[in-house]
Amino acid sequence: MLFYNFEINDNEPVYLQIKNHIKDLITKGLLPVNSKLPSTRELCLLLNVSRNTILSAYDELKTEGLVYSVKSKGTFVKEQSSVATSKWKVDWSLYENEYTKNLNKMDSAKNEIKWKSDLISFKSISPAGDQFDMEELKRAFLNRFNLEGHKLLNYGYAQGYKPLIQFLIEYMNKKNVDSLNKDILITNGFTEALNIVISSLTKPGDYILCENPTHNVSLKIFKSYNLNILPIDLNKNSLDFESINQMIKKYKGKIKFVYITPSYNNPTGIVLSPNDRFKFYNIMKENNIAIIEDGFNEELLYSSSHIFPICSLDNKNNGVIYIGSFSKILFPGMRIGWIFADKNLIDRLVSVKRSINMHVSFLDQGILYDYLKSSSFEKYLKKIRKYYGDKFSFALECANKYINYEYVLGDGGLHLFFKIKDIDTRYLLQKCHEKGVIFMPGDVFFIDENQNNFMRLGFSRLEKDEIEKGIKIIGDTIDEIRKAE
Amino acid sequence: MLFYNFEINDNEPVYLQIKNHIKDLITKGLLPVNSKLPSTRELCLLLNVSRNTILSAYDELKTEGLVYSVKSKGTFVKEQSSVATSKWKVDWSLYENEYTKNLNKMDSAKNEIKWKSDLISFKSISPAGDQFDMEELKRAFLNRFNLEGHKLLNYGYAQGYKPLIQFLIEYMNKKNVDSLNKDILITNGFTEALNIVISSLTKPGDYILCENPTHNVSLKIFKSYNLNILPIDLNKNSLDFESINQMIKKYKGKIKFVYITPSYNNPTGIVLSPNDRFKFYNIMKENNIAIIEDGFNEELLYSSSHIFPICSLDNKNNGVIYIGSFSKILFPGMRIGWIFADKNLIDRLVSVKRSINMHVSFLDQGILYDYLKSSSFEKYLKKIRKYYGDKFSFALECANKYINYEYVLGDGGLHLFFKIKDIDTRYLLQKCHEKGVIFMPGDVFFIDENQNNFMRLGFSRLEKDEIEKGIKIIGDTIDEIRKAE
Repeated sequence: MLFYNFEINDNEPVYLQIKNHIKDLITKGLLPVNSKLPSTRELCLLLNVSRNTILSAYDELKTEGLVYSVKSKGTFVKEQSSVATSKWKVDWSLYENEYTKNLNKMDSAKNEIKWKSDLISFKSISPAGDQFDMEELKRAFLNRFNLEGHKLLNYGYAQGYKPLIQFLIEYMNKKNVDSLNKDILITNGFTEALNIVISSLTKPGDYILCENPTHNVSLKIFKSYNLNILPIDLNKNSLDFESINQMIKKYKGKIKFVYITPSYNNPTGIVLSPNDRFKFYNIMKENNIAIIEDGFNEELLYSSSHIFPICSLDNKNNGVIYIGSFSKILFPGMRIGWIFADKNLIDRLVSVKRSINMHVSFLDQGILYDYLKSSSFEKYLKKIRKYYGDKFSFALECANKYINYEYVLGDGGLHLFFKIKDIDTRYLLQKCHEKGVIFMPGDVFFIDENQNNFMRLGFSRLEKDEIEKGIKIIGDTIDEIRKAE
Repeated sequence: MLFYNFEINDNEPVYLQIKNHIKDLITKGLLPVNSKLPSTRELCLLLNVSRNTILSAYDELKTEGLVYSVKSKGTFVKEQSSVATSKWKVDWSLYENEYTKNLNKMDSAKNEIKWKSDLISFKSISPAGDQFDMEELKRAFLNRFNLEGHKLLNYGYAQGYKPLIQFLIEYMNKKNVDSLNKDILITNGFTEALNIVISSLTKPGDYILCENPTHNVSLKIFKSYNLNILPIDLNKNSLDFESINQMIKKYKGKIKFVYITPSYNNPTGIVLSPNDRFKFYNIMKENNIAIIEDGFNEELLYSSSHIFPICSLDNKNNGVIYIGSFSKILFPGMRIGWIFADKNLIDRLVSVKRSINMHVSFLDQGILYDYLKSSSFEKYLKKIRKYYGDKFSFALECANKYINYEYVLGDGGLHLFFKIKDIDTRYLLQKCHEKGVIFMPGDVFFIDENQNNFMRLGFSRLEKDEIEKGIKIIGDTIDEIRKAE
């Protein structure tokens, strides 16, 4: 590159031409300070001149203070005061559009208390990594890698790795979901799946119904695409159907989507009964409001042998977009989720996926497929249900013992959700943080972030002694705040 | 779930209450056809009634034709004609926004000739998978997995896996890029990186300058966000600086970005000389037009020991956003790329990345890091440069022998780019397809897709005999078309 377009002419000594060429590059700042010049040996071969010519050229450069030599290392560019140094400061904040500004404002990870190793943190609902079935996963990797490693490491299909798609279709079938005229798109986790659906199928100002409270990441996504979010109130066991009917009446014909997590609302843990699923589905069907069903936590319902997702009621129809993910139980670091929906719709979303990032890692899809198709997954599910079930019971026991709550919700899963009468949980968090305990304040799960008396305690990654210690501190702090008032 | 909210009362025989409850679920369609009821054993335990009670309830259901039994399998739901079957057909095309419609229209993968195993395809510029260093990659997996598998399989950071970020910063340093006040965001390949930059930092109608022709995927992304694309004409060796100055003059102060692939324009293969890089950088700096530098193919320049990316001229400034990827040489199936830019800007883009899909697979980042930091990568690079270099020379030799072209461009990389005088390459493609050979028609690389005499031949995944056979067929077909006119 250094001698790209360089041609020797007959008008000047060759060593001078070479010297001037390099000098030109240095003074323009094209050769960065302290970068190495080619060795004299390399250069004489490249330019087809004698080595002495190069040595003379380099000597001249040294004399002019443009380069320096380091013994047995080579010749390097010296810093030049003459190099053009006019500054260029782009003000990137002027480039940011509203989307970027909003996402930064809403990015709770940037505003929240940072985790430290000496904190007892109830914030996370990540699965416990030490429960992962590492030996089986290694086996899955080696098996798939030996079978078709070359293929998995090269470009794949935007829709996903076919064997994994086929496996997931059968997995849905086992949940009594008919796959006729339906198809699957593999995504980088639930988050990307919801982003693809919302960014592809809505316009700013569209109306979407959703449970209030609900998953804070989903709310962030709806807001980032400027949707109008209409709340469905919850009672302790189910949806408030009255509030659904009111909203539908008020916004007659305007509501495009409803977003629902029927099998374990995050944060409340409410599980919709079969009857309520039926009722909910039929209201949406009658009003032609498409359903986005979040399959969150389906696998962790401790009495789940006979639960069917809402999309199983949609067999032969096409009104439900189901989003699945194993991230709350298996390998969230891999980021694999899926959209199950109308076949033609999936085909349209494939083009969106291709344009945003081509496809999900085929290596990861191959490993996950190999793991899932073995009997390991079923065994792991049994083990993990018991493991989290025990933790759940223990956490609830501690809460009953130490926390003076108004009510607690949750029936399994990886967390509990509390209402604490008259206590501002942001203030409570601040006080608990001083004592080494943190949790998720409940306001982030509400559409308007205006509910101040809730908190979510995730226990999945804590040991029992930490759970007890942490919950006791929270309970004591609540009592102290009450006394001080 | 089946007996969620079910409570036994004293007014009716228990077996009837159970029967009626199940009947209700079946007739509402809540229990899908052919789904299995709990075993009598399970159910008597669950409801705390005698097994005979359950047997009586199931018998009643059978009598009423609601269920059927399969010996040693269990009791299953029978299809009911009475189940509400009103249809629900959502017209998803009404939901699609312009973004989705455009991406589908522009999705060349949907319109192009499908690859079949008996075709000689010059379409692809994917790396040759059989050259991947499989044993070393397996070693990297096992090593990283044993060291911190649990961590890599759980949720990670949106910015990326820290050791990989650190490695890439040093990798950029080796290209004489200063990392002071700069930072890196790991993305799902180049495609996601460019999407994040464009979707975060532009508004519809913004002006962007770019080489014409250029990478078709980049053009698709610009168009999907409704940018106005202004062409920079190319001559055979470089940019037409005259056309740059004209555009800048014409759109004074309006151009936000310029997108450039200095080290191997795709499709032309033009490599910008150091002097032209300097000239280009300074024009953009003077006019405050931020540069998006696509590092495409930097690693495959066969005379690359002294090449510096444009961002190395931007040390101490912040006007260049550099996008890197190894996908043309290493493991594109993993989808790993990176954005190197102003530190504060990266921090803002991290929130976008977190909202769209949390982070890139930490497992993949860990494996790639372990592979890159070993000496394998350097060895592989040497091997692969020679491998593709040989193929390049051979393909060029064949082209000179068989193809009557106006000119051919390319100096390394994985493809050649031809201008074929007076030949419509779409027509040529159709004729060659009939003879079992396909290639990439050149029009897709032009902003207005209005140039009909170009074609790109990718040779990376073809054997030498296929290259010769394929190029001969293309050459013969060109001659035939000429004769027929």
